[in-house]
Parts: sequence; structure tokens; C-alpha cells
Amino acid sequence: MAVIDFRLRPPVGGYLDMLMYANAPRRDRATRMHGMEPAPSASKQSIDLLLADMDRAGVTLGVMVGRSSRVYGSVSNEDLKRIAADYPGWFLGIPALDLSDWRAARRQVDQAVSDGFRAIGMEPGAAEQPLHTDDRRLYPLYARIEEAGLPVVLMAGGGAGPDLSYTDPVHVDRVAADFPDLRIVITHGGWPWVHQILHVAYRRPNVYLSPDQYMVNMPGMADWISAADGFLADRLIYGSSYPFLPVDACADWFRALPIRPENMRRVMHDNAARLLGL
Amino acid sequence: MAVIDFRLRPPVGGYLDMLMYANAPRRDRATRMHGMEPAPSASKQSIDLLLADMDRAGVTLGVMVGRSSRVYGSVSNEDLKRIAADYPGWFLGIPALDLSDWRAARRQVDQAVSDGFRAIGMEPGAAEQPLHTDDRRLYPLYARIEEAGLPVVLMAGGGAGPDLSYTDPVHVDRVAADFPDLRIVITHGGWPWVHQILHVAYRRPNVYLSPDQYMVNMPGMADWISAADGFLADRLIYGSSYPFLPVDACADWFRALPIRPENMRRVMHDNAARLLGL
Amino acid sequence: MAVIDFRLRPPVGGYLDMLMYANAPRRDRATRMHGMEPAPSASKQSIDLLLADMDRAGVTLGVMVGRSSRVYGSVSNEDLKRIAADYPGWFLGIPALDLSDWRAARRQVDQAVSDGFRAIGMEPGAAEQPLHTDDRRLYPLYARIEEAGLPVVLMAGGGAGPDLSYTDPVHVDRVAADFPDLRIVITHGGWPWVHQILHVAYRRPNVYLSPDQYMVNMPGMADWISAADGFLADRLIYGSSYPFLPVDACADWFRALPIRPENMRRVMHDNAARLLGL
Repeated sequence: MAVIDFRLRPPVGGYLDMLMYANAPRRDRATRMHGMEPAPSASKQSIDLLLADMDRAGVTLGVMVGRSSRVYGSVSNEDLKRIAADYPGWFLGIPALDLSDWRAARRQVDQAVSDGFRAIGMEPGAAEQPLHTDDRRLYPLYARIEEAGLPVVLMAGGGAGPDLSYTDPVHVDRVAADFPDLRIVITHGGWPWVHQILHVAYRRPNVYLSPDQYMVNMPGMADWISAADGFLADRLIYGSSYPFLPVDACADWFRALPIRPENMRRVMHDNAARLLGL
Repeated sequence: MAVIDFRLRPPVGGYLDMLMYANAPRRDRATRMHGMEPAPSASKQSIDLLLADMDRAGVTLGVMVGRSSRVYGSVSNEDLKRIAADYPGWFLGIPALDLSDWRAARRQVDQAVSDGFRAIGMEPGAAEQPLHTDDRRLYPLYARIEEAGLPVVLMAGGGAGPDLSYTDPVHVDRVAADFPDLRIVITHGGWPWVHQILHVAYRRPNVYLSPDQYMVNMPGMADWISAADGFLADRLIYGSSYPFLPVDACADWFRALPIRPENMRRVMHDNAARLLGL
Repeated sequence: MAVIDFRLRPPVGGYLDMLMYANAPRRDRATRMHGMEPAPSASKQSIDLLLADMDRAGVTLGVMVGRSSRVYGSVSNEDLKRIAADYPGWFLGIPALDLSDWRAARRQVDQAVSDGFRAIGMEPGAAEQPLHTDDRRLYPLYARIEEAGLPVVLMAGGGAGPDLSYTDPVHVDRVAADFPDLRIVITHGGWPWVHQILHVAYRRPNVYLSPDQYMVNMPGMADWISAADGFLADRLIYGSSYPFLPVDACADWFRALPIRPENMRRVMHDNAARLLGL
């Protein structure tokens, strides 16, 4: 079974300046909290090792989410395009809007659309001035992305902002209700609000959840699994958050979960492919 | 074992105009998200099929909760009385207050009491102007219902309002603390706030939970089951939310849960009977 | 294996005036909600029976948390010292600040430090004027405790305040972020916000969780257990909340949980010992 890993940042280009590579002890500490050992490809910052791991694990495509954050570091759209071109077929980039100037960000949406990107990322809680996902200043951006017919990939889980309020799912719930034609992928899956975000996904057909690393040996795991094999089989999306988790060990771990084969294929491949129009 | 189904809307009278019957695809989509198939009695809007299903499943009484909502539709108190009279012994109606005029709603309480209803329903989040359950304008109503010695059946779970904040259990927690002699049944069980609402019930002896459809194959299910067989055995109340779930398949599913027989009887019958003074 | 019980209030001194001893029916009702029978040592208010139970259960040290509350009762620092002296080696007291005069409480911190206490307790939600844990008026106290290098034992779970908002973990999250060198032990473990508080502990290395009674047969139990045997093995701390749970039955119950021996030893002993500098 071919696997799409919806959150994978390879050790090349601008990613190397980001905290996840620049601060290896912090990253490795996180890896071990999930019960896994750091990937040699991450420690050695080796793209060759990563590609070999992807190959062995059946991961045929890694979705690179961009980032524009003064806290966590940034990777440019040019970088995303260059990496995808340098390793043809392996990676697909999703640019992240720079929200430090919210009015100018509208033009970034237009640029991403004309550049042919298949989705647009936003990390409002990691902005220079952190924003909740239903902040009024983001609404013109959501409107424009909705009009363009692209999905938005929204970081709204884990340490998405300075405190827990930034992942409170009421914010995402309002966005999903106000933009019913906008497909919203919640990276980090809205964790730790597992029950609440699953309700949001139950109620709003335009919401997709990608819990990525926070599904792995974390509280609420049993509920994610049930949903993946139940009402959310068409909208849960697999991801490793590499380099936080090893791309191969994570895929192997996931494949062993008690999810029926037809739903496993949806979650590990088909849902992402459909969403990205592949 | 005789079963009381605490949330059951038969396909007759005003119910047929409500969204749950008028929009069958929306309803059937929900049914399937719970892992069940739509009931023929719902699709065919057949009261005869429903009564046969109830009979086969041992459901001796269906509690019909009224509704006064411009969003979801309404069913009048007269309708509730007529249905109960038309099918003697099968149904018991609980009128829902029309909260579009909160000051006039006080008189509806008095009317319901003098009409001999055994409980009074409120769906504040579904009102024309949606209200949180601890909105000050509802306090005169709670006070009057408490004085009348009746339980209030409060919708405070699922899609109870325009967004997730309407089910935030802090609102119900305050009402339960402020009206300690008012028995409060939370329909949809406060889902998806499973841990939090169970805390509220742990702390407030006047709170009863009826998770109905949201207990069936939904996140938090394991915790509901433990509570039903543990500290909440005297205050958890079974319901199907028919027509969202088939009245018979739901009862069969529930009876197979790992709950000890003496607690199963409380949850599926005795708690509701005691609450309603039957 | 020697066990440290991190929340244990013996039936002597000022504790006897507190609600947990003065109102036995209320306490016993809670005990039974956790699926246990009241301890004879509690009913008979017998320190001898308690010491025998501790001895039999391998509980070598009981951490007595003080309290200064007009609602739940108070126990003075002098009492804590006297009890520890009367039963040498059995008990260790942690004084609780009287927050009714928040400016004067600063001097209580200094007094506790000079008295040689190893930690300082705060119950902001139980103060005469209930406070959320991130209330600005508490920040001078946190700052002073952080400077003194002591841990703070913060009640921020269960019925910590007049309503559920007092346990909302966003408040504790902010304190932990703002005082990264302050070790914070959350008694009652942030329950019922199990998923959310585990996120806080995942993100903030200075947060310790002691779910005590709320880990026993309560919603979220499975997630506590996984965390205790996983990412939180070094920061979860065992406690019984005696007299709410019997000191021996609770320890026996806990020891039977599916937690690996090396982590069980950390949770039931080493983490508390390290935190208290024993």
C-alpha cells in the first residue's frame, strides 16, 4: 500500500534553519515522549537516509508544510518548489502564509494559487502576534482560499500558540461553520481536545483531521483509532510530523493499528490524495 | 427487561415537519456515522413499523421531547398530548419551552404544570436567539421549574447551538450549583465534553445524563460505559434519539454493553421511571 | 517497594475540624463513587488504625497538604509541624497559603521557607474570594516560591473552585509557561481535563501531575495509566486523597495497574522523593 505522509519536513533547504533541526535535543526529547527513538536521518540531517526510509516504509509522497514564524523558523515558497524539483515525485509543498502583515497576506494567497500550489497553510498561533484561528483578521484570507477552491491546512493542535487557548476547538468550529465550502485540514488534529475536535468533525463535513505525531502513544489515542475506523474514515489523514517521529517507524506503527484494511488505505493514502487533487 | 427510551420522536403529528423527518438524507448520514443503518420505520414514516420495533426491542415507553425551534422545527404541546392519547401507553410527552419570548415562557411553565406534564424541556442553544444554558434570562424559568418540583430536560450536548461553546459544561455546572433542588437531565449527555460533564455529574447530585445517540460508537464511549456501571449508575439514562438511531438496533446494542445487570436495569428503565414519577 | 502517598490527611489536629472529617456522610458518599468502602480509620478517626494501614500497604510517608479555606476548613502550619513531630517519620507537611489577604501571603512564603518546609501549597479556587490559578494577584507569590527554589503544590482539579472554570487547564498552562523554573505539582491532577492537562505536562517540563483520587475508577483513567507508563513516568505522582480513599486499598489498587515495575517505582515513590529533596 502506497502511503502519503501529510506532515514531513526533509532535512534540506530552509528546514535546516528551523528549530526542529537547529535544536536536536529538544526534538529528540519529543520523539522519546512518543516512545520512539530519533531517526538517524534526522540526527545526521541526511536526505539520502530519509529517502531510503520512505522507500522501505512505502511512503511514496511526503507533504511538506511551509512555515513563516519568527519563533519556530521559516521556509520560503521558493524553497518548497526547489526541494520538490530536486527530488522529483517525493515531496509536495504547501506554502504557509506570513501572517505578520495580515493585509498583505491576501496577495500571498493569490500568489500561491497562481504558482499552482494545491493547498495553503496557516499557523495563526505561531504568528509574530499570535492569533486564534477565528480571529476576524483571518477571515478575508479564509474567504479568498475558499473562493480559490483550495483546502487550507491549519495548525490548531499541539503547541500551536503560546497557551492552550489557541487549540480550543471552538475557534475552528466557528471557521468551519462560517466557511462551509472551505475544506479545513487541522494539523496536530486539534490535540489535546480529542473528544471536542472529533465532535467538530462529526458536525462539519468540511473538516479533516490529521493528528500526526499526537496520535502516537498519546492521550485520546483510542478515540482517534475508533474514529479512523468509523465515522471519520473518509476524513482522517495520516502524518508522521517527521523529523519529530521517524518516517518509517511511524508508518509501521500506524499500519499495525486495529483499523480495517479499506479504512487504513483511506487514512494513509486516499483521503490525502483526494484532498490534494492527485 | 422493560426499557424506557428517553428520546424518541415518532413519525406522526408535528414531528413530520421537523428537520429530522423532512430532511432524510441529513438524518440517514448521521445514522451511518454511528455505524447503524437507517430504520425502515423512519424512512417510511410508519408508526406501525415503529411500534413493532419497540415491541420487539422491549421498549415499553418512548419519551417524546418537544421542540420549539425556528431552525430545527417545532412540535406543539397539543400534538404531544394527542400522540400520547392516540397510542395509549406507548409515549410520554415532555413539552419544550418556546424561548423566543423569554418573559412569556414563564407562563408556559405554569401551563405545562397545570397540564400535568411530568418534566419540562428547554433547548436554549436552538432558540431563535441562541442562549447559553446559564444565561440570566433563563434563571426565572429554572426557578419556577424548581419550585414546581419537576425535572428540566436540557439539551446541552451535540449540536445544541451554533458552535461548541453552547455545550461547554461550565454553563450547566453553574445552573446545577445555583439550583441544587432542580433535577437536570442533560440530553445528548453534554457530548463531546465527556470527561468534563462526568465531573459535573460526580459533583452535582442533581444532574442526570442521557447521552443517547452520542454514546453509540462515539468518542468517550468507554468512559460513559464505566460511569454507567459505576458512580453514575443511578443517574445515567438510556435513549436512542430515534429517528436518528433505530429504536430496536440501539436497544440491542446497548444491552450488549459490559454493564452489570442490576445497573443495566437502572440505566435502561428505573432511573427514567423514578425521575418521571412513574 | 516503599510508597510515598502525596495526599494524606491524618485524623488528628486541625484536620478533624475540616469538612472531610466533620461531614462523614459527604466523604463516604465520595469514597463509594470511586468503588471503594470507607476506611475504618477514617470513620473512627483513629490514627492508630491509619498507621497500621500505612504499614501494611508499604506507605512509608504521607504528605500532609495544609489548607486555609473558610469553605473546607483550615489546618495551621503549627499543626503540621506538631503532627510530623508526634509521629516521627510518618508524615511530611506542606503548608498552604492563606490567600484571603494576597499581599500578606508573601510573608507566609518567607515564613514557610525559613521554617524549612520543602514545598508550598496553594488552593486559589478555595480562597474566600475564589481565584483562577493565573490570577495576577498570585504572580508575586509564584515569583517568590520560584526564587526560593521550592515546588508549589497547586490544587487545580476536582472541585477546586465554585465551578468548572477553576480547573480549566489554560490557567495552569499560563503559569507554567510564565514561571519555567517553578516546579508545579497539580493535585487532583487537573481532573476532569485529562487530555488537556496531559498536553500541558507534555509541553511544560516543570509540571507534575498528582491525580490522586481522580485516577481511581474515574473517566480518563486509561489515559492517566498510559501516561504514567509512558511520557509522564518521571512526573506523575501517586496519592490517595485519604480520608477520601482508604490508604491501603488505594495503594493495592494502584499497584495492580498495568504499569511497568520501574515506572511504578517512580510514580509511587521516586518522583515525590526527588521533588521534595528527600
